[in-house]
Amino acid sequence: MSLREVARIRVIYGDTDQMGFVYYANYLRYFEVARNEYLRSAGQTYRAFEASAGLFLPVVEAEAKYHRPARYDDELTIFADIPWIKGASACFQYAIRRAEDLKVDLATGHTIHACVNKDGKIVRIPEALKSALQKSQG
Amino acid sequence: MSLREVARIRVIYGDTDQMGFVYYANYLRYFEVARNEYLRSAGQTYRAFEASAGLFLPVVEAEAKYHRPARYDDELTIFADIPWIKGASACFQYAIRRAEDLKVDLATGHTIHACVNKDGKIVRIPEALKSALQKSQG
Amino acid sequence: MSLREVARIRVIYGDTDQMGFVYYANYLRYFEVARNEYLRSAGQTYRAFEASAGLFLPVVEAEAKYHRPARYDDELTIFADIPWIKGASACFQYAIRRAEDLKVDLATGHTIHACVNKDGKIVRIPEALKSALQKSQG
Amino acid sequence: MSLREVARIRVIYGDTDQMGFVYYANYLRYFEVARNEYLRSAGQTYRAFEASAGLFLPVVEAEAKYHRPARYDDELTIFADIPWIKGASACFQYAIRRAEDLKVDLATGHTIHACVNKDGKIVRIPEALKSALQKSQG
Repeated sequence: MSLREVARIRVIYGDTDQMGFVYYANYLRYFEVARNEYLRSAGQTYRAFEASAGLFLPVVEAEAKYHRPARYDDELTIFADIPWIKGASACFQYAIRRAEDLKVDLATGHTIHACVNKDGKIVRIPEALKSALQKSQG
Repeated sequence: MSLREVARIRVIYGDTDQMGFVYYANYLRYFEVARNEYLRSAGQTYRAFEASAGLFLPVVEAEAKYHRPARYDDELTIFADIPWIKGASACFQYAIRRAEDLKVDLATGHTIHACVNKDGKIVRIPEALKSALQKSQG
Repeated sequence: MSLREVARIRVIYGDTDQMGFVYYANYLRYFEVARNEYLRSAGQTYRAFEASAGLFLPVVEAEAKYHRPARYDDELTIFADIPWIKGASACFQYAIRRAEDLKVDLATGHTIHACVNKDGKIVRIPEALKSALQKSQG
Repeated sequence: MSLREVARIRVIYGDTDQMGFVYYANYLRYFEVARNEYLRSAGQTYRAFEASAGLFLPVVEAEAKYHRPARYDDELTIFADIPWIKGASACFQYAIRRAEDLKVDLATGHTIHACVNKDGKIVRIPEALKSALQKSQG
C-alpha cells in the first residue's frame, strides 16, 4: 500500500482560525477533495456513481491526526490510498503535506464508508467499482 | 418596519479566521439562522414549508456590510425583519450585534428570495405563508 | 465517567449536504461547541484561558463515528465529558443526539488536545485548570 | 474594465446543501479564492502584504447575485477584476461560471475592502500595491 498524490489545494483565509492555522474540521473537507480526485484518477467519479448506480458512500467513521499546522496561502499536496475494500464498505487513507516539503506530514487520517442505497440500506459495492478501485490501489 | 431579536449565537473558533475575527462568509450562515428563527416565531418553519408545499425559497441576492468585527466566544444577538413581500419573492433584513452592547451593529445585510417549485420554476408565494409573514412584520 | 448535556444546536441548511444530512466535517464544529460549553459549565472559558495563561489547546487527534444522520432543522443535544487529563494533554469525548430522542446516538467521537505556549512548545496544563476540569468530570 | 479568469474550483460535497446546490455563503469563499489568485497574478500575495506592510484589507461590504445553481463536482471558473481603487479602499468584482459553459454566469458579486493597520485604523493603500493592481486592471 502506498499513498499517491491526488490533489493540490491552496489554503484560504476562510480555512484558518484565529490561532493562524487551518481549523481542524477543514482537513475533513480536504480529505473529501482527495476522495473525489482519487476516484477520478481511477476512471470513476462519485457523482456518476450516485447517478448511475443509485448508491451512496456515506462516511461512517473519520479520524485525523494533526502533526503540524497548515497556514494561510500554503499550497498543500494531498495524498490518498484505499487500504481495504470489503463487501459493503471501504477505507480511504490520507496524508496532507506542504507542496514545498513533501517529507513532512501536516495531517494524516482515514475515513470508512458504507455502501447504501436510496433507502439507507447497506448493500454490496458494485463489482465494477470494486475492481476499478482495486486496480488503483497503491 | 423594525428589526426584532430572533436568535442568539456564540461564536466558535471555527467561525473565526487568522485576523481573529469572524470570517465574512460566516455572517451569511448567521443570517440563515435568523431566517429560520424568524419563520419559527411567525408560526412557520422552512422545513415544513418545503415538505408540505413542495416549494423552496432560494437566495437570489445577498448583501452584507461589516461595521465592526465579531470575535471568538462573543455572544451575538441576531435581529431580522421582512421589509417586503411580493408575489413570488421576499426580502429579509438582518442586524447582528453583541449581546452585551445592543446599540452597535457589527454587521447588517439583506437577502432576497425567489419562490420556486421542484422544477426550479418561479411560482407565487402561497397566501397562507404570505399572510403569516405579513402579520409578523415589524 | 458519564457524558453530560452541554449545548443545544439547531441544524441549518448550511450544515447539510446534497445527501440531505449534516456534512461529516460539521460534526467537528459541533464538538467544538461542546468543548466551549463544557469549559464554561466548569467555570472556565477557553477565551480567558488563552488570554490569561497565554496557552493554547490545539487538537492533535480527532475521531468521529457517524451512526445515524442529523437533518436540517433538527434540534441536537450535545453531550461531553473529559475521560482523562494528563500532564500536558487532555481528551474530550462527545455524543450528539436528537433533542426529541435522547436514547439514540447520531454521532460520537473524541478529540485529544495538547497544551502549548505561544511558541508552540508543549507545556504542562496549569494546575488551576486541571483541578477545575477534574472536579467537573462525570 | 474586463473580468479575467483567475482560478478553477471543483465543487465538493461539503460545499452543497440539501437543495443539491452550492450553499449561498460558500460563493464568498470562492470570491476569496479569486482575490488571492488575482493578487498572485499581479505579482503580489495577500500573505506577503500582511507580513511585509503590516496592513490588512478586511471586507467592509460584500454582495452576491445568484443566477443559476452550481452543483457537486462542477468545475467552476472564477473571474475577477478590480473596478476601482481609492486612497484607502478598493473594490473587487467577480463572476463564477461553469468551466464547460463560460457564457453563463452562475453567480456574480463584489467586495469592498478597507486598508487598515494592526490597530484597525484606516490607512492609505501603499503606492507599490496600488500601482501593481492598477497595471493588472482589465
